[in-house]
Amino acid sequence: MVENDGDQQSQRRPDLATKLPGMFSRYKSSVEKELYRVVPNAGDPNVPNNEPYRLLRYHLGWVDQQGEPMDTSVTQGKALRPTLCLFACDALSDDYSKALPAAAALELIHNFSLVHDDIQDQDLERRHQPTVWHLWGIPKALWSGNAMQCTGDLALLDVAEQNVNPATVLKVSGILTKSYLEMIQGQCMDLNFESRTDIKSDEYLYMIACKTGALIRAGLEIGALLATEDAATVKAFAEFGEHLGQAFQVRDDYLGIWGDQATLGKATDSDIRRRKKSYPVVFALERAGGSAMEDLLRIYRQEELEEDDVQRVLAVLDEVGSQENAQRVIEAAAARALEALKPVSLPQWAQSEAEDLVDFLARREY
Amino acid sequence: MVENDGDQQSQRRPDLATKLPGMFSRYKSSVEKELYRVVPNAGDPNVPNNEPYRLLRYHLGWVDQQGEPMDTSVTQGKALRPTLCLFACDALSDDYSKALPAAAALELIHNFSLVHDDIQDQDLERRHQPTVWHLWGIPKALWSGNAMQCTGDLALLDVAEQNVNPATVLKVSGILTKSYLEMIQGQCMDLNFESRTDIKSDEYLYMIACKTGALIRAGLEIGALLATEDAATVKAFAEFGEHLGQAFQVRDDYLGIWGDQATLGKATDSDIRRRKKSYPVVFALERAGGSAMEDLLRIYRQEELEEDDVQRVLAVLDEVGSQENAQRVIEAAAARALEALKPVSLPQWAQSEAEDLVDFLARREY
Repeated sequence: MVENDGDQQSQRRPDLATKLPGMFSRYKSSVEKELYRVVPNAGDPNVPNNEPYRLLRYHLGWVDQQGEPMDTSVTQGKALRPTLCLFACDALSDDYSKALPAAAALELIHNFSLVHDDIQDQDLERRHQPTVWHLWGIPKALWSGNAMQCTGDLALLDVAEQNVNPATVLKVSGILTKSYLEMIQGQCMDLNFESRTDIKSDEYLYMIACKTGALIRAGLEIGALLATEDAATVKAFAEFGEHLGQAFQVRDDYLGIWGDQATLGKATDSDIRRRKKSYPVVFALERAGGSAMEDLLRIYRQEELEEDDVQRVLAVLDEVGSQENAQRVIEAAAARALEALKPVSLPQWAQSEAEDLVDFLARREY
Repeated sequence: MVENDGDQQSQRRPDLATKLPGMFSRYKSSVEKELYRVVPNAGDPNVPNNEPYRLLRYHLGWVDQQGEPMDTSVTQGKALRPTLCLFACDALSDDYSKALPAAAALELIHNFSLVHDDIQDQDLERRHQPTVWHLWGIPKALWSGNAMQCTGDLALLDVAEQNVNPATVLKVSGILTKSYLEMIQGQCMDLNFESRTDIKSDEYLYMIACKTGALIRAGLEIGALLATEDAATVKAFAEFGEHLGQAFQVRDDYLGIWGDQATLGKATDSDIRRRKKSYPVVFALERAGGSAMEDLLRIYRQEELEEDDVQRVLAVLDEVGSQENAQRVIEAAAARALEALKPVSLPQWAQSEAEDLVDFLARREY
């Protein structure tokens, strides 16, 4: 399975968080405050049935299983999507606060997908914590995920209270909803890939464009739309997001195989062991021939992989040049991302931060 | 588990469908046409990954497992929520067509909850067909349900194309989203009731107000809001819906125990056998004393019920007057529903249809 967030990885070593580009720390507390505002407090007596919120707050890393507060600096993700949304709005206007409800909505929709993704993959842990379904069972995880998505949709409607005209709010709502419908389609495609060994690279890249890219693109598009009425600028930010999403996900796939164990805090090659059909594997399944291909097919038909199998897969990836190819794809996407922004005249700080962001997402080690 | 639709029951004997109040047949083809319009065609080459739509169309009863068209007169529900929405709009204006996208959205959101409800309850059949999760597994059912919900949200935004001002569309969107968040909260409460034997009647009625009532109320409120700007009228329709929802669900509970086997086409008392904590059982658990209470507690702690247990539960329900009490609650809700509409001056046909509707939902035998 594709991770649709590098959250797990970036959280392994919290001290590395300082290496995140500056924009992440600039918007962090605004995003947190907005999330706290839109997610009803589980202790609120005006919320007669607050259980879904308790599970939701647990998943977001705010409280532990018993509902006691947690140290959120360790338990939270880096909030990539809200950060991108606020950055776009900030770069194009003098007030990014009107994009805050949309930023919160993006984070909640993303987390809704993670809760359901954990059910799908039967994953037991996320961000060092037991997953919601693992603690409370599938039905409660199912409905808590749904409540998270609804809470996100409701948050988005608050954009209307930010002095944004209703027609624009409707447009924003349409962009968000369409993007998470795409995300869901990506999830379904990914599911079908599990049983296939004939996935083409292009198909895979299309799948991650849906599963990971759509919400990243939506974040940038929405942030831009809330700052400017210039359609060409909004489109440029959307395209920037599209290519960024590809660079981000393929780099995630890369690190899942060749990342540094100490930096990531988890065994590298773990994606091989879990038989994830990530981009480098798809590429190898497309390119390998002869006994290399026979071995891959045999190995990916097994239920479980032995150490020998893992080593053999790594050798085949090496043989067909999967590692270089993956980084080539990442670099090309990164270049296209920056190219997409070129027609837009941005303030110097924003241009330079956009470059830092691309550099980080395409070349990060964690 | 509470049925959040009498669909299963009404579909057992399609010939009975003719007994539905006239409004159902009046809006039926418009609702169907709108649903066909908003759910992408699985064969559409512009929809590159159409699997979620295939499953969605299967659940809606349009196609069979292989994607071949089905006879929808047998396989579809009665579309209660869209019908109520269109009725409200029709009763208050001369053009109900502007409410069609909202009507489709309500039906899709309702069906999304059914797909996830079937996962939760591990139900194998719905409307005589194997359930989606049973055929394609939990992950695909999960994402197909999510796609259904998204498709509903997107359909709703089409209201903006019906010459409705954007601010009203936003209001409608807020009502719909809040109502299905309530529905989700109801689902969570219901889940918690499974392991409890100390549920109070009031708690139960609150739970069904969320789980079943919220979307019914939203349908009527939205239909009214699209027809008139008069807040008092919109509120009256919302309250009408609230009471209607209670009458509908408690009658559903009633029929699940004392419905006529031949009419319903399924064994009566099946809700007892499945240990559903429906309203009559909750009432008995609240009222029974002595050995009756001991027996109830013992029986509802068992994993499976024998014929003797079912008979004993029925005897206790009889002893505490559960049947009369349930119908009393239904009649009271029906009366409150009509009372809520009183301040609104409706055309004669609409007033009379509202009465037929209440009569049907509160006293139906199927």
